[in-house]
Amino acid sequence: MAKITQVSPLAPEAFPDLPVIKGLRFAATAAGVRYAGRTDVMLAHLAPGSVMTGVFTRSKTRSANVLDCQAKIGGETGDGAAILVNSGNSNAFTGRAGDESVGALCQAVGRAMDLPETRVFTSSTGVIGERLPHDRIIAKVDDLVAALDEGGIAEAARAIMTTDTFPKGACETVALEGGEVRIAGIAKGSGMIAPDMATMLVYVFTDAKIDRADLQALVSEITDRTFNAITVDSDTSTSDTLLMGATGASGVAVDRNNEAFAQALERVFRDLAHQVVRDGEGATKFVTVEVTGAESDADARVHAMSIANSPLVKTAIAGEDPNWGRVVMAIGKSGAAADRDLLTIRFGDVLVAEKGWVSPDYREEQGASEMKKAEITISVDLGLGDGQYTAWTCDLTHGYISINADYRS
Amino acid sequence: MAKITQVSPLAPEAFPDLPVIKGLRFAATAAGVRYAGRTDVMLAHLAPGSVMTGVFTRSKTRSANVLDCQAKIGGETGDGAAILVNSGNSNAFTGRAGDESVGALCQAVGRAMDLPETRVFTSSTGVIGERLPHDRIIAKVDDLVAALDEGGIAEAARAIMTTDTFPKGACETVALEGGEVRIAGIAKGSGMIAPDMATMLVYVFTDAKIDRADLQALVSEITDRTFNAITVDSDTSTSDTLLMGATGASGVAVDRNNEAFAQALERVFRDLAHQVVRDGEGATKFVTVEVTGAESDADARVHAMSIANSPLVKTAIAGEDPNWGRVVMAIGKSGAAADRDLLTIRFGDVLVAEKGWVSPDYREEQGASEMKKAEITISVDLGLGDGQYTAWTCDLTHGYISINADYRS
Repeated sequence: MAKITQVSPLAPEAFPDLPVIKGLRFAATAAGVRYAGRTDVMLAHLAPGSVMTGVFTRSKTRSANVLDCQAKIGGETGDGAAILVNSGNSNAFTGRAGDESVGALCQAVGRAMDLPETRVFTSSTGVIGERLPHDRIIAKVDDLVAALDEGGIAEAARAIMTTDTFPKGACETVALEGGEVRIAGIAKGSGMIAPDMATMLVYVFTDAKIDRADLQALVSEITDRTFNAITVDSDTSTSDTLLMGATGASGVAVDRNNEAFAQALERVFRDLAHQVVRDGEGATKFVTVEVTGAESDADARVHAMSIANSPLVKTAIAGEDPNWGRVVMAIGKSGAAADRDLLTIRFGDVLVAEKGWVSPDYREEQGASEMKKAEITISVDLGLGDGQYTAWTCDLTHGYISINADYRS
Repeated sequence: MAKITQVSPLAPEAFPDLPVIKGLRFAATAAGVRYAGRTDVMLAHLAPGSVMTGVFTRSKTRSANVLDCQAKIGGETGDGAAILVNSGNSNAFTGRAGDESVGALCQAVGRAMDLPETRVFTSSTGVIGERLPHDRIIAKVDDLVAALDEGGIAEAARAIMTTDTFPKGACETVALEGGEVRIAGIAKGSGMIAPDMATMLVYVFTDAKIDRADLQALVSEITDRTFNAITVDSDTSTSDTLLMGATGASGVAVDRNNEAFAQALERVFRDLAHQVVRDGEGATKFVTVEVTGAESDADARVHAMSIANSPLVKTAIAGEDPNWGRVVMAIGKSGAAADRDLLTIRFGDVLVAEKGWVSPDYREEQGASEMKKAEITISVDLGLGDGQYTAWTCDLTHGYISINADYRS
């Protein structure tokens, strides 16, 4: 695990002041799973009547925790729910022992909180392939339950960090006809980030009253445009998990068609997703890749991710080189429809290339000036249709190599 | 363009002593396309009666040269053929000017050598998006024609280098019933290397007498197992070209079913493909990824390329970290069929993981010892079927970042 102490230059100024979500409490503790001198386990409790939804990695080598969560999502009992998360060890590729660890954790939490095991969700993040020392976590469960507190979410965000250089949180308060509802979320993740959820753990909560199927539909749809639109290194984790719970404690009812709620939820998801990119291993630039004019949204996504994942594009950005030829290359290799002579490429507002060649008015200094910024937008119009997609990524630097070549993670 | 002067630590000891191919002559010169103080153009001439075959990038943003070669392959005239290659400028994404440059070069070479333009093939490699100064090349054509020499292939191999740290050549002599035939090839490429031909230029020749369709079938089939099985950085160039010519001058006839010839040809292709990986930008390790037991060969290829392209696997190798968890991750994310609990993973001969977990007899020192080698084999058996594929790659190091972030290429 990388021993990185310097906070990403792209980090937000401070952890946000997250609102209390009625019906939701948190606790964190140091169980010594792998790290010393820091918290590494968080527990969240959702009051009876809460609904739980989730989105998970599509990896074929999913961790035992992910498989267990997937089996439990959808089986509401009215008892409320608990989420237990540890950092330091992912409990992935640990064979039968992995399943045993999940079972033992769920049993211990269920017993301590008087919850059926089917209402206990767990995540583990950290090194793959080493047996999870779950006894160390179980020994702390009673302390965690005793410490549960409405204001504990910031400490929970810290406890789930691995190579993260800052804790990640986001929130919205939405004024609806029936009253205000609140949304608050935390996340971890900084490497092994790519579509299909990557190494990310995300926990989002609301006190809105919403049907489980409606919330799941919103969560799935918004994830496609937010967490599945970011990439640090094109690598996808075995453990990615997004859980969202709604306690209903505000008494304000919403459904999947409530635009104000859906938009606020998307802002929270997008904010957390961007924070993961901003903490990308070794990142010094935050890059938005906007693709328009594709034959379809799906094609636009293929092009956007091809650009966002290209090592040559990402190293050029690291070097502040306005190397639009590498953008052309990434479009050409993506496999989706493109016509060389219809492409338009912009860096920020600067028109760089059009009609199959560099723009006649473009001067290299303009591109170079755009590339010096910490936040860069690459826009590509394919000139073929109405398909569009936006992806977010970071640059590929010596820092990424140092973090991933020099330490076991 | 990277100013790398240190030869790759994985380079062969010396450029091989390539045999003369009867009916084939080469010349090289310094035209000052972009570089100073080195040769940057090569010309090859194949005698009348030669057949020409080729395989090209599938990029949607192919260079003008590639499009021109593709249009000409297959149109034999009996007049022989010429191949003109420049380094320093790829003539890619240069709009109509790119087509004009190709036309001007073909006209000049055709006129100087008394060849129809349809028998002149060109390749350009180097920076994308800048107009090719083709007049500088055309000014040297007469000198090149005058200098054509049976022994000029080694100089030709040097003239086509860009970020390459060593010239690449390979050869075979095959004793057949009718007599000996010779195969000799040269290549360039060290970055932007991925399936679908990557930034590679490859020129292979034989004096065997073979039907064009038969040679094309062999070339296409063998390319899938050799040049399309290597990756440095998953990026695919707009300019990749493999041309193979057979002069027939040995008088020894072969067809596509001649096993001895096909195997010799595959050895030459594989040798050149390996040399490209060995010259991978920043490479310090040569990595073979063998996948067996997949549901199909196609699935095995997807897994092998997922492992070979994973930044996390490649940085672990750079750090000599036997991080088999990252291999599991890469299998999981590939999208092809896999069962976590049936996987077997080996580093060299060391059994690392089996049955969904680390092997009970595995000790970390064994893996660490394998990873210290300059040549590493990662073997994965999926336990599902008979599908297999082998890919080759290199590690991802600070050197790659330096080459690609610090210079325009």
